[in-house]
Amino acid sequence: MALASEQDFLDLVDRHFPNTHAGVELGRGDDCAVIRPGGDLCVSTDLFLEDQHFRRSYFSAGDIGYKGLAVNVSDILGMGGRPTGFCLSLMAPRGIEDAFWEEFFAAMADLAREVDAPLVGGDLSSAEKIGVCVTIWGEAIAQGRFLRRGMTRPGDTVFMAGRPGLARAGLLCLEDEGLRATDVCPEAVQAHLRPRMLMRQAVELAGDPGVRGLMDVSDGLARDLPRFLAEGQGLEVKLDPGALHPEVVAQAEARGEDPVEFALLGGEDYGLLAAADEETCRALSNRIADHIITGTVVDRPGLWRNGSPLTLDGFDHFAS
Amino acid sequence: MALASEQDFLDLVDRHFPNTHAGVELGRGDDCAVIRPGGDLCVSTDLFLEDQHFRRSYFSAGDIGYKGLAVNVSDILGMGGRPTGFCLSLMAPRGIEDAFWEEFFAAMADLAREVDAPLVGGDLSSAEKIGVCVTIWGEAIAQGRFLRRGMTRPGDTVFMAGRPGLARAGLLCLEDEGLRATDVCPEAVQAHLRPRMLMRQAVELAGDPGVRGLMDVSDGLARDLPRFLAEGQGLEVKLDPGALHPEVVAQAEARGEDPVEFALLGGEDYGLLAAADEETCRALSNRIADHIITGTVVDRPGLWRNGSPLTLDGFDHFAS
Repeated sequence: MALASEQDFLDLVDRHFPNTHAGVELGRGDDCAVIRPGGDLCVSTDLFLEDQHFRRSYFSAGDIGYKGLAVNVSDILGMGGRPTGFCLSLMAPRGIEDAFWEEFFAAMADLAREVDAPLVGGDLSSAEKIGVCVTIWGEAIAQGRFLRRGMTRPGDTVFMAGRPGLARAGLLCLEDEGLRATDVCPEAVQAHLRPRMLMRQAVELAGDPGVRGLMDVSDGLARDLPRFLAEGQGLEVKLDPGALHPEVVAQAEARGEDPVEFALLGGEDYGLLAAADEETCRALSNRIADHIITGTVVDRPGLWRNGSPLTLDGFDHFAS
Repeated sequence: MALASEQDFLDLVDRHFPNTHAGVELGRGDDCAVIRPGGDLCVSTDLFLEDQHFRRSYFSAGDIGYKGLAVNVSDILGMGGRPTGFCLSLMAPRGIEDAFWEEFFAAMADLAREVDAPLVGGDLSSAEKIGVCVTIWGEAIAQGRFLRRGMTRPGDTVFMAGRPGLARAGLLCLEDEGLRATDVCPEAVQAHLRPRMLMRQAVELAGDPGVRGLMDVSDGLARDLPRFLAEGQGLEVKLDPGALHPEVVAQAEARGEDPVEFALLGGEDYGLLAAADEETCRALSNRIADHIITGTVVDRPGLWRNGSPLTLDGFDHFAS
């Protein structure tokens, strides 16, 4: 078989993904699926491409299927949304064995089940490299309230659910050591290959009326914090090195880098940034185990440390 | 520039696509866009990839941008829907000049304006070849009524809006002659490079209560007719050769093929199949200029001509 035709693809999809779901009026198999939204929908799309976003040398088929969907789920959580459906377009080189696709779809279907999002449509094409394009949509967790960027106020604390820099530690270690990295920094490797989706945390954050804004951290805190703040505002960064994951600290130190700067550069953290007053953040800290306080919002743009502009080697956070 | 960064992509998109629209609560620029559906939504996704679906040797940048969206619009029309929004993921090789992307986006934006569908989100990645992945959604043209496949009844006439085989004639001529094909069969070439979207025809068909089922013809009538019929039913094919486009007839004859068989093999027609009683189809024929009657529904499966199984060289319509 080896996914040679659209029909093989449809059969494989049907074996792994149920074709009925609450909110889906008409499943896969016609020109379009038909969904019945319960209100406003948030929508996002992301590409996940071989040799651009992942390497087959250390990503298993299951890792690719999982993460191809996960990077999209995270965008929905970052709006205070809960995924309610997705479409999958798959680029598949000829000659990849059946077992690969079985594992790919099984892992993607596991995540779809975990977040309760039905697959309602798709497309397949031959291509030279594997590529996944998912479009995903969701409904607001807290009735009718999506949480946006740019909602911070001076004095707010910026809270992050997740572990900044951990996926970067995993990526760098995998690039250096291949799968031997699993012995060196197992949690960092896992964070890069199969980032945990912070669904429960999104429910906590979106459901708390004290949380003013929410955002998915995917390009690293140094890039994403300025995007999260309201216009004209900045952040006095107060990342406590003691709150960083030990594998982040170890990887940074092994590279002669400052752990806080290493964590700020991050990338693919798939954490959630939230803005709220200090008291709300203190309460959130008790309810969300993996978190870090990134700093305090100030009324001048940029990232600051002890009142001076924060500088990171090889990174200009004033450029986009 | 040459589309080197996500920011270049966003700037280019912003220049070509307005970021406000009725039904869009929050446009591009956050983790997700937020849409406000007026009711059920139909959803579809399609890939449009270099060297799989198009060649740069005879597709202009504008043709690629136009058709990458058009193949998706047609799926919405095939449900009796009207597009209400879409997402674009773009794979862009490095080193393609700015003028290419300007033309690409201008043509896609022209079509988006023609069908009144806002672009609400997107993603960009480097890749070795150009690739377009669009996910599109729409609302029912006739209040709450999407039109599905499998709704035919024996005795129904199957009507097709569009010109079967014309895009195939264009493709074959382009493959043989390159852009010189434009002189040989200009309308066929146009049908392949920039298929017309049958928006007005979809409104006629979906709005007629006599029309029982609707479907987008994209894989050729020989493949798509069996998919359109209700289970256990077939079609007595009665395609009038005199109703075929003259360029279809000319291309078929130049290749020593029967024009009706050539048209049935089609591919990328982006026509609309509709099932209705004879009288309704007669009325539709007066309102929809480019159309053809494909035949009459019978109560045994398969495609038939004069009561015998229809055979097409090199094509088994009983296989999927």
